Amino acid sequence: MMKIAILGLGTVGGGVLKLLQKVNEARTDSKIDITHVLARDIKDETLDLTGIIVTDDVDEILNSDIQLIVEVLGGVDFPYAVQRKALERGIHVVTANKDMLALHLNELAQIANQHQAQIGYEASCGGGIPIIQPLQYSLNANKINKVMGILNGTTNYILTKMADEQCEYQEALAQAQALGYAEKDPTNDIEGDDAARKIAILSRLAFKVNIPLERVEVRGISQVDQQDIQLAQENGFTLKLLGKSRQVVDAISISVEPVLLPTTHSLANVKLEKNAIFIEGDAVGQTMFYGPGAGSSETASAVVSDILFIEKFGFTGNLTTQESGHFTKSITDHRYYIRLEEDMSLLKERLTAMNIKYQLWQNDEITAVLTATISEPTFKALTQELTLAAYYQIEGE
Amino acid sequence: MMKIAILGLGTVGGGVLKLLQKVNEARTDSKIDITHVLARDIKDETLDLTGIIVTDDVDEILNSDIQLIVEVLGGVDFPYAVQRKALERGIHVVTANKDMLALHLNELAQIANQHQAQIGYEASCGGGIPIIQPLQYSLNANKINKVMGILNGTTNYILTKMADEQCEYQEALAQAQALGYAEKDPTNDIEGDDAARKIAILSRLAFKVNIPLERVEVRGISQVDQQDIQLAQENGFTLKLLGKSRQVVDAISISVEPVLLPTTHSLANVKLEKNAIFIEGDAVGQTMFYGPGAGSSETASAVVSDILFIEKFGFTGNLTTQESGHFTKSITDHRYYIRLEEDMSLLKERLTAMNIKYQLWQNDEITAVLTATISEPTFKALTQELTLAAYYQIEGE
Repeated sequence: MMKIAILGLGTVGGGVLKLLQKVNEARTDSKIDITHVLARDIKDETLDLTGIIVTDDVDEILNSDIQLIVEVLGGVDFPYAVQRKALERGIHVVTANKDMLALHLNELAQIANQHQAQIGYEASCGGGIPIIQPLQYSLNANKINKVMGILNGTTNYILTKMADEQCEYQEALAQAQALGYAEKDPTNDIEGDDAARKIAILSRLAFKVNIPLERVEVRGISQVDQQDIQLAQENGFTLKLLGKSRQVVDAISISVEPVLLPTTHSLANVKLEKNAIFIEGDAVGQTMFYGPGAGSSETASAVVSDILFIEKFGFTGNLTTQESGHFTKSITDHRYYIRLEEDMSLLKERLTAMNIKYQLWQNDEITAVLTATISEPTFKALTQELTLAAYYQIEGE
Repeated sequence: MMKIAILGLGTVGGGVLKLLQKVNEARTDSKIDITHVLARDIKDETLDLTGIIVTDDVDEILNSDIQLIVEVLGGVDFPYAVQRKALERGIHVVTANKDMLALHLNELAQIANQHQAQIGYEASCGGGIPIIQPLQYSLNANKINKVMGILNGTTNYILTKMADEQCEYQEALAQAQALGYAEKDPTNDIEGDDAARKIAILSRLAFKVNIPLERVEVRGISQVDQQDIQLAQENGFTLKLLGKSRQVVDAISISVEPVLLPTTHSLANVKLEKNAIFIEGDAVGQTMFYGPGAGSSETASAVVSDILFIEKFGFTGNLTTQESGHFTKSITDHRYYIRLEEDMSLLKERLTAMNIKYQLWQNDEITAVLTATISEPTFKALTQELTLAAYYQIEGE
């Protein structure tokens, strides 16, 4: 009977408690013993805390004979300190805390390995979608070349509304807030920071190298214009905010940015608040994992799968990584969608001068250019001193 | 150093050999030792068999100190006998052999458990797509309600061509044959038998009950008419051959049949030879796993992941199952697409008499009816004594 504590009883913590109790109910053999919960005040009256010690003193929990803590507190510094302390005592940790992991996972993994403690973080990326375990155990015969994901439900909801219902950005954001998909201060989601943490965590696991968070180039969706979405759609492309990374030899390109995908691409059809992660491996080719990126019972599904895995297998070893070669966007060539504030003639002249083929896309509202495949440095040279109204890489071709 | 043998050096076996050698090359620590290969004549000259005993005597392999066999022979009786013998000696088995597993997995799992041997069968369903391991380890906090999959690349290729390029069935089949996606005698794929085996294996694992293969109701695509595909598309639906199963309390509905999905459904956008499996769990909600359903290195990706899992964890226990309550299609209600050979007036009269609402779909070529949601027995009663030209359940709403 494994003794565990749940640290944090918010949306995810409450979901974990309920799901564990359900799993226990269905079991005829040994149950999972939830001995402690770390919480100040418990707002959710549907939670059954019978036989569970509720405390706001984390040391009371870490000093007990607890074997595993579920850290679903949110924040960075306190969770980091708590996880570190737990791992140093050989206590397993299961967490959904992407903000903290994106900064400290490698260090924590080293500490954990020294003390034969396991870190489970299936819930940190893609909510309920199985992705960490499949990368670790199902695609492990592959060298992973590419990871691309719709990793943030808020922005995907907004972009879906803008595309399918011709909403303006502000209106779509307000809808997302009304439905609880976006927070009052949506900066973290909208500006791509949330997705950046997730693509950093996934890419570290996929490529087995350090991914310092500051190396992820981030561009959010607050500048996205309805008109570009419509023009792209008319030409068979869908705008999505992707976390994406690619490894070529020892160079890594990693970013979060809005890109255009062919409407037939599997990621293009991931709608509203749903998430999906696309993985390309040298043996398996292209795979995709789709599902709920957030939610109480959905995220709990991932958290509890980690708990059950650790219950069955105990310490199985945590991946630790080293520095990679270098980070550069210039390893990936793309077609580019470009629209200028000013008249397009200067851009056209340059394209011709640089011998870059292009298509013109236009409708009643706007005109844009779709270039042939060029490198990132070429794109930079091409658009130097021009005022760009919008530019997007074409992905997934 | 785990000693393994590969039984069969066809497309998949050759892929497994190559991928294992690649995995070994990348390793600095203990390698996987491929000691034997079972093969009569080796056609593929790109295979490196240095240091490997090639034999056509399976007992020579089973009598050696082998620890794991990879069975990728094809067929049923001989592979069954070999796997049984291996498991009785405590030798682990990794296999892609769905035809055999759909008949014998439960019995083999019991034998394996008695002898602490593990059976890995990730490659048996959905080729390279991680689905068996995610069901076992990532979605295991869920009660699975529903499994739906595009589990056969041949038929999906044909239906995609018929939908997107307005090919007739025979023409699309010929194309699939020319590209090697369909065999000369395509019966097994076309008539749904291949998909039936896969949905039986997946549903057994998902619902944890026996699924006798003969309880899977099977209808293939050889009768599918181009005209119905077009009419459905005009109304926002895509025709797909799905293996699908559902559990409600102790009753199971399981079938392989062409169904209509909303074009926005994630499975509707799985094109050509690709496969995808949609899983619905009570905690996670809807998830989907997408990727290659066949291919040499693709399937090898799944086989080798099983080998690596067994290398790391050894015997972890095989699921054994009991009889379920009962099999019935009447637990699932659907809307139905119905087209008659004769004039539609009799059907319309009956619909009105039975108080079933319906829409009329028509174009220049044909007229069909889309009913409101009705039960399977109601559908049977409704269409009794009528000559149906086409009927399809609407799924995924």
